[in-house]
Amino acid sequence: MKPRILIINGPNLNLVGRREPDVYGSRSLDEYIDSLAESMPGVTIDRMQSNHEGDIIDMLHEWGYDKDLTGIVLNAGAYTHTSLAIADAIAAINVPVVEVHISNVWSRDAVRHHSMLSPVCRGVIAGFGLDSYRLAVLSLLPPAL
Amino acid sequence: MKPRILIINGPNLNLVGRREPDVYGSRSLDEYIDSLAESMPGVTIDRMQSNHEGDIIDMLHEWGYDKDLTGIVLNAGAYTHTSLAIADAIAAINVPVVEVHISNVWSRDAVRHHSMLSPVCRGVIAGFGLDSYRLAVLSLLPPAL
Amino acid sequence: MKPRILIINGPNLNLVGRREPDVYGSRSLDEYIDSLAESMPGVTIDRMQSNHEGDIIDMLHEWGYDKDLTGIVLNAGAYTHTSLAIADAIAAINVPVVEVHISNVWSRDAVRHHSMLSPVCRGVIAGFGLDSYRLAVLSLLPPAL
Amino acid sequence: MKPRILIINGPNLNLVGRREPDVYGSRSLDEYIDSLAESMPGVTIDRMQSNHEGDIIDMLHEWGYDKDLTGIVLNAGAYTHTSLAIADAIAAINVPVVEVHISNVWSRDAVRHHSMLSPVCRGVIAGFGLDSYRLAVLSLLPPAL
Amino acid sequence: MKPRILIINGPNLNLVGRREPDVYGSRSLDEYIDSLAESMPGVTIDRMQSNHEGDIIDMLHEWGYDKDLTGIVLNAGAYTHTSLAIADAIAAINVPVVEVHISNVWSRDAVRHHSMLSPVCRGVIAGFGLDSYRLAVLSLLPPAL
Amino acid sequence: MKPRILIINGPNLNLVGRREPDVYGSRSLDEYIDSLAESMPGVTIDRMQSNHEGDIIDMLHEWGYDKDLTGIVLNAGAYTHTSLAIADAIAAINVPVVEVHISNVWSRDAVRHHSMLSPVCRGVIAGFGLDSYRLAVLSLLPPAL
Amino acid sequence: MKPRILIINGPNLNLVGRREPDVYGSRSLDEYIDSLAESMPGVTIDRMQSNHEGDIIDMLHEWGYDKDLTGIVLNAGAYTHTSLAIADAIAAINVPVVEVHISNVWSRDAVRHHSMLSPVCRGVIAGFGLDSYRLAVLSLLPPAL
Amino acid sequence: MKPRILIINGPNLNLVGRREPDVYGSRSLDEYIDSLAESMPGVTIDRMQSNHEGDIIDMLHEWGYDKDLTGIVLNAGAYTHTSLAIADAIAAINVPVVEVHISNVWSRDAVRHHSMLSPVCRGVIAGFGLDSYRLAVLSLLPPAL
Amino acid sequence: MKPRILIINGPNLNLVGRREPDVYGSRSLDEYIDSLAESMPGVTIDRMQSNHEGDIIDMLHEWGYDKDLTGIVLNAGAYTHTSLAIADAIAAINVPVVEVHISNVWSRDAVRHHSMLSPVCRGVIAGFGLDSYRLAVLSLLPPAL
Amino acid sequence: MKPRILIINGPNLNLVGRREPDVYGSRSLDEYIDSLAESMPGVTIDRMQSNHEGDIIDMLHEWGYDKDLTGIVLNAGAYTHTSLAIADAIAAINVPVVEVHISNVWSRDAVRHHSMLSPVCRGVIAGFGLDSYRLAVLSLLPPAL
Amino acid sequence: MKPRILIINGPNLNLVGRREPDVYGSRSLDEYIDSLAESMPGVTIDRMQSNHEGDIIDMLHEWGYDKDLTGIVLNAGAYTHTSLAIADAIAAINVPVVEVHISNVWSRDAVRHHSMLSPVCRGVIAGFGLDSYRLAVLSLLPPAL
Amino acid sequence: MKPRILIINGPNLNLVGRREPDVYGSRSLDEYIDSLAESMPGVTIDRMQSNHEGDIIDMLHEWGYDKDLTGIVLNAGAYTHTSLAIADAIAAINVPVVEVHISNVWSRDAVRHHSMLSPVCRGVIAGFGLDSYRLAVLSLLPPAL
Repeated sequence: MKPRILIINGPNLNLVGRREPDVYGSRSLDEYIDSLAESMPGVTIDRMQSNHEGDIIDMLHEWGYDKDLTGIVLNAGAYTHTSLAIADAIAAINVPVVEVHISNVWSRDAVRHHSMLSPVCRGVIAGFGLDSYRLAVLSLLPPAL
Repeated sequence: MKPRILIINGPNLNLVGRREPDVYGSRSLDEYIDSLAESMPGVTIDRMQSNHEGDIIDMLHEWGYDKDLTGIVLNAGAYTHTSLAIADAIAAINVPVVEVHISNVWSRDAVRHHSMLSPVCRGVIAGFGLDSYRLAVLSLLPPAL
Repeated sequence: MKPRILIINGPNLNLVGRREPDVYGSRSLDEYIDSLAESMPGVTIDRMQSNHEGDIIDMLHEWGYDKDLTGIVLNAGAYTHTSLAIADAIAAINVPVVEVHISNVWSRDAVRHHSMLSPVCRGVIAGFGLDSYRLAVLSLLPPAL
Repeated sequence: MKPRILIINGPNLNLVGRREPDVYGSRSLDEYIDSLAESMPGVTIDRMQSNHEGDIIDMLHEWGYDKDLTGIVLNAGAYTHTSLAIADAIAAINVPVVEVHISNVWSRDAVRHHSMLSPVCRGVIAGFGLDSYRLAVLSLLPPAL
Repeated sequence: MKPRILIINGPNLNLVGRREPDVYGSRSLDEYIDSLAESMPGVTIDRMQSNHEGDIIDMLHEWGYDKDLTGIVLNAGAYTHTSLAIADAIAAINVPVVEVHISNVWSRDAVRHHSMLSPVCRGVIAGFGLDSYRLAVLSLLPPAL
Repeated sequence: MKPRILIINGPNLNLVGRREPDVYGSRSLDEYIDSLAESMPGVTIDRMQSNHEGDIIDMLHEWGYDKDLTGIVLNAGAYTHTSLAIADAIAAINVPVVEVHISNVWSRDAVRHHSMLSPVCRGVIAGFGLDSYRLAVLSLLPPAL
Repeated sequence: MKPRILIINGPNLNLVGRREPDVYGSRSLDEYIDSLAESMPGVTIDRMQSNHEGDIIDMLHEWGYDKDLTGIVLNAGAYTHTSLAIADAIAAINVPVVEVHISNVWSRDAVRHHSMLSPVCRGVIAGFGLDSYRLAVLSLLPPAL
Repeated sequence: MKPRILIINGPNLNLVGRREPDVYGSRSLDEYIDSLAESMPGVTIDRMQSNHEGDIIDMLHEWGYDKDLTGIVLNAGAYTHTSLAIADAIAAINVPVVEVHISNVWSRDAVRHHSMLSPVCRGVIAGFGLDSYRLAVLSLLPPAL
Repeated sequence: MKPRILIINGPNLNLVGRREPDVYGSRSLDEYIDSLAESMPGVTIDRMQSNHEGDIIDMLHEWGYDKDLTGIVLNAGAYTHTSLAIADAIAAINVPVVEVHISNVWSRDAVRHHSMLSPVCRGVIAGFGLDSYRLAVLSLLPPAL
Repeated sequence: MKPRILIINGPNLNLVGRREPDVYGSRSLDEYIDSLAESMPGVTIDRMQSNHEGDIIDMLHEWGYDKDLTGIVLNAGAYTHTSLAIADAIAAINVPVVEVHISNVWSRDAVRHHSMLSPVCRGVIAGFGLDSYRLAVLSLLPPAL
Repeated sequence: MKPRILIINGPNLNLVGRREPDVYGSRSLDEYIDSLAESMPGVTIDRMQSNHEGDIIDMLHEWGYDKDLTGIVLNAGAYTHTSLAIADAIAAINVPVVEVHISNVWSRDAVRHHSMLSPVCRGVIAGFGLDSYRLAVLSLLPPAL
Repeated sequence: MKPRILIINGPNLNLVGRREPDVYGSRSLDEYIDSLAESMPGVTIDRMQSNHEGDIIDMLHEWGYDKDLTGIVLNAGAYTHTSLAIADAIAAINVPVVEVHISNVWSRDAVRHHSMLSPVCRGVIAGFGLDSYRLAVLSLLPPAL
């Protein structure tokens, strides 16, 4: 069976590609993930997005005990910095979670320097633009080496 | 086409008119907005209320790129003081947002003196009771002047 | 008319019975509350669970003015420590609320030692496992003594 | 008798329309208030401007006991942040005063975040450009609702 | 064999019902516990009271290894806040101990906000008046569920 | 030639007698100074009032080198606590200046405890109500002794 | 009956006229008060001087309940800044006390900026040289105005 | 056309030459500027002085958009340290402003160490006595080199 | 009926007379109180001593509501400085309590300078050796004067 | 020879009975001490009062080596808190000194909580009203026991 | 006569051997002391245990003046850290006291780092498990060397 | 004419020789000064002592302008540390004053480390026992060298 990865995007990430397109390009996260999936024919990549803290918890619960799921890539957006409840959900499930950020959050304003999720995630990948997602998917696959 | 305004009310504001009616009067926000809409036949006034942080973000996204929407009047209640995610949503959208408060927030307890939303809103109107909403709607209409 | 109690469970509490079953047993909160209700035929016990902060506020509003509701048992999970909006909702309604915790929160990490809800609840019951719920229900019934 | 509103503008506000016209337009405050007055034929609108702290106090005294004056709209410019004497004058008179700012003062430098006048004003309207004045005038008229 | 519960009351609790009777009622803890025992014919309820720190430790030792004792309900009064030796005793014994307080200790003076006993008790029940005892007894009985 | 005294009153002091008349009486400072002048036929008493910091400086300059002026009685109101420029003017002129206050400023709010003017005035008279002015005039006349 | 004023002088004030006579003149306080009394034939002026803290308290007691005494003018010299016992005496008596200083105490060293007596005195007159006494006497007489 | 410079002097600077003439000489600022103008026949030098904060703002406005004015030399006296409104005026106009001080303000009392104007002026020249004005005029002329 | 006084002695006070007899004499507290009682035939004097904090609380409870008891003389020894529970007991009872110390506690080590009991006692007598007890008894009797 | 006691009262204590008689009663300290002396015919009671710090030192010296003086009862009033010199005098003499206070000084303002005299007195009696004096006299008499 | 040693054990030490037997072994302190006594036939070893602070004081008093007692070995358990009264008792008696602890108290939680008893004991032995007792007994015997 | 020196001794110094004679010897300050005077036949030595702060000021005044007095040796005892009024007196007079202390005041308790008199005295001699006086007298005589 092919490895299977779930990408969960949090609040405002549905706007990528729409907001300030001359800066970030006009490619949406959906388009990006389509390309990513195409480039990795040996991996099944699912995706979800919600602006609700509660939805993210719901998704983590729904998928977090699925033995066929290799891992979860989570970009929790602004909830990264405020949600003890998402952290609790990550701690409760079995599937490993990798935290990703498009930007380098430590070079932004102070309120974004602290992640409540990092301690309960397998790892963190931040600052590589959209490519952070590809690296996160790779981090969850069995290494070739 | 008539100008169109969306009024978004946040947590616990559905209780206005019900809680301590001898103090605040028995008029609910819905009744007030009905009157407001009637008094402005040239404007379409939509309204939404939610106690959900995520709903407020969804509404902002759903309406925030609508070229036919003149503006959004937002009273985010207690989320005013805690929600980085709503601030991010306001910053991301194109439709202007006006922050309103029924009371004079600078004369209340300290936790309510700081708004996470003000820097990304077009303006702030506070202290005029329910009339703050009417002023906020007017602030978004094309001035005759 | 029979006394009626509403049990509201917050984020991640739907996982009880699933997470670490050899530690916590395999009984879910739903199964537990079924048994609890069966064991108290003289009481109507309703239940709700949500991972959404806004849902909890909605429930409190919906039921908080119901003259036929004896009381609300609330386990707000991680929102206990962060939600000013839930505290505002409890303060606004008429039905008494009892705060419960499954674990002894004072023997856990420091961020869980402070409750934003305790000052507006009638009382606190913590540390009795699932039985905390039964005790909370009893605390709201008219005592025989 | 028609309602009557006095608009008082403080230091440097006579430059509006002249300074950075490609940004702010070339309309002066005087032209704006002319239009505003024309657009509200049911209201008598008087105006005064001075770069002198003392003039502003004089105006407040001269008009502040006038039973025929509905209210005063005050943009005290930089004196907002430094004048104990203007605050004393507002506190002494009977006519209500509404504080306005053209810009969103909370998104500017820290010295402009504190107003010495807000505690003695009826309300605050900030960030709507010149339209802040129209809203302030409206806030002083008897609402239709 | 019937379940057996020991209620231990600490210093000054023998005065309940005597001190400020128009405030607290004239019912003593003894009368209350009599009623409680009567209302629970299926449970043997023993009680002890002492103003002595050492007596409380002795009682905990004497009963703390008794396989026939279901649990101990402890209101340690002022010793709650000062006695490391009682905490050591609770930690050493096998019978579970439940900490109770008649009042909501978090709404009283600061010296009474910290309990030396809570970390070593099974749970805490506070704020329900004398009914806190009934709930604590119930918390120690084998739940029907 | 008769001695000549100039009384300078600063911001808001023109309101004395008008503001809160049941507390302060309905006598204005002008009426008081009229009586004062009448009661001292051997002294020419001039008076000026301005709400302008610059006017007060101008007056001090205009009169401060006049050899026929015996002295200046200055109640600078709120400028007492903020005006370095008035202090510089007092320090520059030759005619002696006496600082007066109607109330006992040391028994009011802290911002009014510090005078920028006292170190450069000849003396200070405070706490005697309007009679502080008469004492200040007398302090500037050539004592008979 | 003529008004009667008691002038009390504290430590080192007997040296006035003797110390640095080219600066302060050669007139002693006694000579000054003689002239002052002569110049006010309608007032009886008594005087006392002592370098003893206790004497000042004795004088305040002896005269402080005298219904025929209009008021006390007190220059407590260095005891102004150190004597809790003199403040207690002023607070205990009925006759009003006016605090005087020959020099402008606010332009001297910091230890002389705080008076222990001001809060219990009627008013303060400082900086007019010996004439401070005459003004203080006048402040206690019924004003003509 | 000849370069044209406006010298604006603020509060108390009209007293130069009059105050303490044996220290500063008896030359007034007017006489000095006459000589300065004579010594620079190729430059038109205008001058203004006012003790009013508002007047200085008025002057800056009146001249600040004059394309024929080369620059403004401003000695704002004590307002240098307190006037946010003058700083706003300087920032608003087009003509460059050079801040001058006769004395070395940093070697005087602490309240004179901070200038609110420096950030919006082209440069600062301080401490050269009256010659500071000549240097300021030169700084605004096209350099010979 | 004769006045009746209870003397309660706390920890280590049974050693008086035995410890360092050449310093303190060889008279025990018991012998002293015998003599004291003999010397006051009109007063019934009871005594108790215990090294147990709990015993002292027991005694206070047992006697503290006795209408025939004139007062209690309490020397709580080292518990004076540590016992919140004894303070609670004194506050709860009706009979007045006088705090006594044999030594001058203010001339000993710092830990003995603060009494937890003084605020709830009628008065304090310290430093008179054993005679402190006699004085305390007298302080509770109706004074002859 | 009869025992002989000297009572020394410090500043303002001569006013007892005169100041606020409805609060403290109209009995003066002199009248109280007369009654006290009458009630103790076997004791010679001398008394002195002075408002002078130096007098109190003189009295202590004059009587402090008198072998016929049994002891001194000292109420030093406000000097209790400020006089190092009185403390030195007490330390130097042979006759024992007992410090008394009419009120419970630990329940008054903080400046009166620290006594400079206590460490050098034999003992302290406080809080028994005027009866504190009788107890202090008794404390100095040879106990019958 | 043989040397005689008394071992006093404080609160909870009666539980040794019973609590966590797989960790500490199942040997009680009584059994250990039996063996210790057997191994030292030349020494009489007595033992006592109590959970009461007051009992420990009582024991120290009862044995502390016994000329036939060589020394006391005291393990005061948790009272080591809170009892000023036991420290007073040790200071009062003649027989030397050695403080022992089974564990290394300085490597445990901070509240156990401070002993109130050490300053008045002859020495301290801590951290050698039960062997601490043997070493303490040896420390009290006349050394063989 | 012979040089003439006045020695002034302050509070409690009349007790030297009487207090603790086995420590300080039985020689009084009077006897010591007699010897000192005998040993310096070329100098007239006068002496005064008082326990009154006011007397010391009186003495300084009486002698401080005497042209025939070479200098004053002042040991102000405890007033050294508290009397601003004595410092004022020293500053006012013409005769030089030398401050002496028998002991090394800086090696005593902290309250004695600060002298209010040193800044206005010619010099300080401290720590040489009674010989400090001889050195002080010598310091005021014309040096032999």
